[in-house]
Parts: sequence; structure tokens; C-alpha cells
Amino acid sequence: MDKLIFINGEACDSINVLDRGLLFGDSVYEVTRSQESKLIYLDYHLGRLENSANRLYYPKGIIDEVRSDIEKITPLYINKDDYYLRIIITRGIDKNIGLIPDEDTKPNRILILQKFTPYPERWYKEGISLCVSSIKRNHPEGLNPDIKSGNYLNNYLALSEAKRRGFDDALMLSQGLKLTESTTSNIWFVKGNTFYTPSLDNGLLAGITRSRIISIIQAHPELELVEGSFDLEQIKDADEIFVSSSTKELIPVNKLEDKVFNVSEQSKTNLIAKLYREQVRADHQL
Amino acid sequence: MDKLIFINGEACDSINVLDRGLLFGDSVYEVTRSQESKLIYLDYHLGRLENSANRLYYPKGIIDEVRSDIEKITPLYINKDDYYLRIIITRGIDKNIGLIPDEDTKPNRILILQKFTPYPERWYKEGISLCVSSIKRNHPEGLNPDIKSGNYLNNYLALSEAKRRGFDDALMLSQGLKLTESTTSNIWFVKGNTFYTPSLDNGLLAGITRSRIISIIQAHPELELVEGSFDLEQIKDADEIFVSSSTKELIPVNKLEDKVFNVSEQSKTNLIAKLYREQVRADHQL
Repeated sequence: MDKLIFINGEACDSINVLDRGLLFGDSVYEVTRSQESKLIYLDYHLGRLENSANRLYYPKGIIDEVRSDIEKITPLYINKDDYYLRIIITRGIDKNIGLIPDEDTKPNRILILQKFTPYPERWYKEGISLCVSSIKRNHPEGLNPDIKSGNYLNNYLALSEAKRRGFDDALMLSQGLKLTESTTSNIWFVKGNTFYTPSLDNGLLAGITRSRIISIIQAHPELELVEGSFDLEQIKDADEIFVSSSTKELIPVNKLEDKVFNVSEQSKTNLIAKLYREQVRADHQL
Repeated sequence: MDKLIFINGEACDSINVLDRGLLFGDSVYEVTRSQESKLIYLDYHLGRLENSANRLYYPKGIIDEVRSDIEKITPLYINKDDYYLRIIITRGIDKNIGLIPDEDTKPNRILILQKFTPYPERWYKEGISLCVSSIKRNHPEGLNPDIKSGNYLNNYLALSEAKRRGFDDALMLSQGLKLTESTTSNIWFVKGNTFYTPSLDNGLLAGITRSRIISIIQAHPELELVEGSFDLEQIKDADEIFVSSSTKELIPVNKLEDKVFNVSEQSKTNLIAKLYREQVRADHQL
């Protein structure tokens, strides 16, 4: 299997040009992966998908249909190998091509399934480099980054700048110059026994891995967690930096612009990465 | 003819789900219309399309291919009736579904052609109502509104709010609370003999109709033009308000939130609307 694509429960890899997902990026999505046949934190992902869909005024009940697609389709294909699953809901076809949807517009549910390709082992051992993007994260009053939507050019522009500058990824600031997230991951820094991560009101995605990590840190007797608004000086003064996402889990950062950071087997980042993997196994009875 | 869709020069109305236009809203577009078989201000639209494409790092030369599609296809279908033409370029298929495009990604060129449906006559005679949106226009440092892209949820959220509140459209402010534009049109106000419109540095699309109107006002001996940064108090204090776009031309505004504005046959808005229509005819030898 290279890639399997299903639309509204049927195998199909093309979509009408008049779909608002194409015309306006009017879609919501989630990405998860499987481990030993289990889709990791699927309920959390579907909950967040519902939140995104509600905030864009998609019809109620659409998430139940998506869940039913997933229950019907994924057991037929997902086996002991690890799989990547992308779930997309578009608002549907808009025959009038107007910004306000046709009255009879019906959402399209898309599933994309493929073998999971792990990120480079080197990233986990040696870390990745981040630049500070000149592109500011979309402001919550414009298009809230907490809506996981098909409008992804803000992140693309930042990542594209990072690659042109020779960095692996970009740290995005808010217009108020506070830390938000990287282009596809949440951001963390560590100083002593304290873990810092931007609070959601800075304008960032409520990461599912992020929320699991918060629980792990809060449950640990020797570690402390601070969610808040942080500026560049604070993260540059850290002992360690890492990013987190559902597909990447935790990846250490070895450089932020010209400032080098320690990446080691004995790091706090590595401790949490291990605890996170154990948590995933416990939460899914693996 | 209901709707004709061409992809890369061939009749085709569906696109691969892995196209970045669908995955990330990674596309640029233009809309124009025909009058008496002429595509109105096509060169300006292709120029702006090229600007949008360049700012998203699309491959050079793509606009020449689009122009060649248009020259090949539109004369076969566009006749004395008025037609709507939507030109979309997506960055193309991304087999890896990564935010950074595959090396061999090739743009897809889409043309959508349909009979032009005029906006309600009532809008031109009686005007439309605008609310002031709680959604702020995307900030130029995040995703510059001057890039006409497939990331349109910012505008959708504002228009959707307007409709829910019973207004025809929404005036969008910048995060600095300056006027920018409405959800699909530029905004203008008139006080005495002076026409005011937000300057591009407030974060708005460089409208083609807007730029023609600027020339018309500047060429008129009795009228004055001021481009600048304006706040709500200034536009509420105006004699007249109107919006402009390529498909709408000029439409008067009869209400901004609860403030009522005069719409009449003898208005300055109507004068410029007439001069604009004459300018279009002159510029295209109609």
C-alpha cells in the first residue's frame, strides 16, 4: 500500500474543483498515527476536529460520520506496521462559488492512509535547528490558530523561510513578539527543573501531545510546569528546548538562530520523551 | 453552458486530493469577467496573479502558461453574453503531504468559466449594509492580504458573522483598528469633494478596480483623493460610503452598523460608478 484515499467512505482520490476546500481552504483536519493497530489518541483528535468544525459553523453531526468512516475503513488496512492517518472535512461543493456557502452544501469527509515514515533518527539524537521567523503567527482575532484548518499558508511561509535560511524549522512569534509555536509543533523550554510552554491565549494550537506532556510534568514530583507568555530572551536563556507533535512526539532543539543548546541522552527532554512514549503505551494498552 | 472547468488546458472538473490547494489552501487566484467578449483588465489580473505567485515562491513562467490557456480556451466559449472567469493556480500535488513541497511538485492551472450573474439591482440603487466585523483582517506580517490566495477563512468568518447579524457584508479592521476592506471588496468614503480609501500598508488587497478609481478621481478637476490610515469615527462621519471590486464595480453602502448613509442617483458614488463604467469601455474599445 502506498496511499489509500477515501471520500465519504468510498475509495476515491479526486475531488470536485468547486469544493470549498480547494476554493477557500475551507476545511478542517487532524493527523494521527497508529501503533500496533491502535490509532493514537483518536478520541482527542476527533474532539479537536469537532471544535475546529464548530468554530467554522460546519453542520452538527459530521464528526459522528467521520468516526463511522474510520471504524469501517481503518481496521481493513491498518496492521502491525505503523500508519499515518489524515482526516479532512471540507465544507463541500459550492456551485455558486460565493464566499457564503450554498444552502445545500454538504461536507465531504476525506481519509488519507499511508505507511508511517518515521522522522530522521538524527533529529531525535542530535536535535533540530530553529530560526526565528519574520512571519508572525496568525492572530487569534483574525484566524485563530486553535482552528486546525486548511488555511496553512501562514505556517508554510515561515517554514519556507527557515529552509531558505538553512534551518530545519521556524519558531513563530505573535505580533506582540511572544512565543507561539513552530510551524507544525508546539514549543517548550526547560530551565532547571521547570518546563515552560506558551499558554493557549498567545495564539497557538492546543496540541494533544502538548496536553499529555503537561499532565506528565504535573504528575512528576520533581518537575514544575509554567504556562504563560514568554519572549525570545527567556527561551534563549533556557537549558534545553524541544518541540512536540502527534507524529513527531518530542524532538530536541540544538540551535535557535545562533544560540546553541545542549542535546544529550541525560537531558530532561529525553526524560519526558521516554515518559511520553510510556504514557502512550499505557493509554492504549500496548 | 452552466460551468466549464479546465485543468492545465483540458476540460476536467476534479483534482487530486493530494493537491496542496486542497491540503493547505496553497493556491493563488484571480476573478474577472467579460463584457462583449473582452476579458476586463485581464493584463492587470495576470500581473497581480504573478505577484501573488512570486510571493508564495511558485515557479517562474507559470503565468505565461496560464495566459496561453486563457488565449486558447476562452475565445471558444465567451460570446456576447457576460462571463465570469476564475483563474486558480495551485502549487500542485504533494505526494509526501509535507508542508515543504516535494521537489517534483508542478503547479496545476485551473480555469472556471460560467455565465456572469449580475449582483442584485437593488444593491446598486439602494445600497448594502455593512457591520463592523469582530474578526480582524489578517496581518501583513502573518499572511499578507495583498497575496490573493486560497486561504480565505479570515474573510469567510467575517462575512459569516455579518450574515448572522443580518448585514450584507462586513467592514474589516486591522489589529490596530484601522479600516482595511470589506470581505471581498475595497472600501471608500466620501466627505465633500474628497474621496478616502485605506492605503495598502493597512493590510488589504491592491484592488484593480480600486486603482482605476484612484486614477479617475485624480484626473477629475473638482475631486480630491486621500489614501491613508483611517479609523471608524472617520468613516462614520462620511457623506457617502461605497465598496468596489472587479465583479461588483461600485456598490453604495446605506448603513454601517446603526449609522444610515445617503444613497441617491445624484451621489458622488454614482458619479464615479458611471465614470468607471465609461473608463472600462474606453480601456477595452467597447
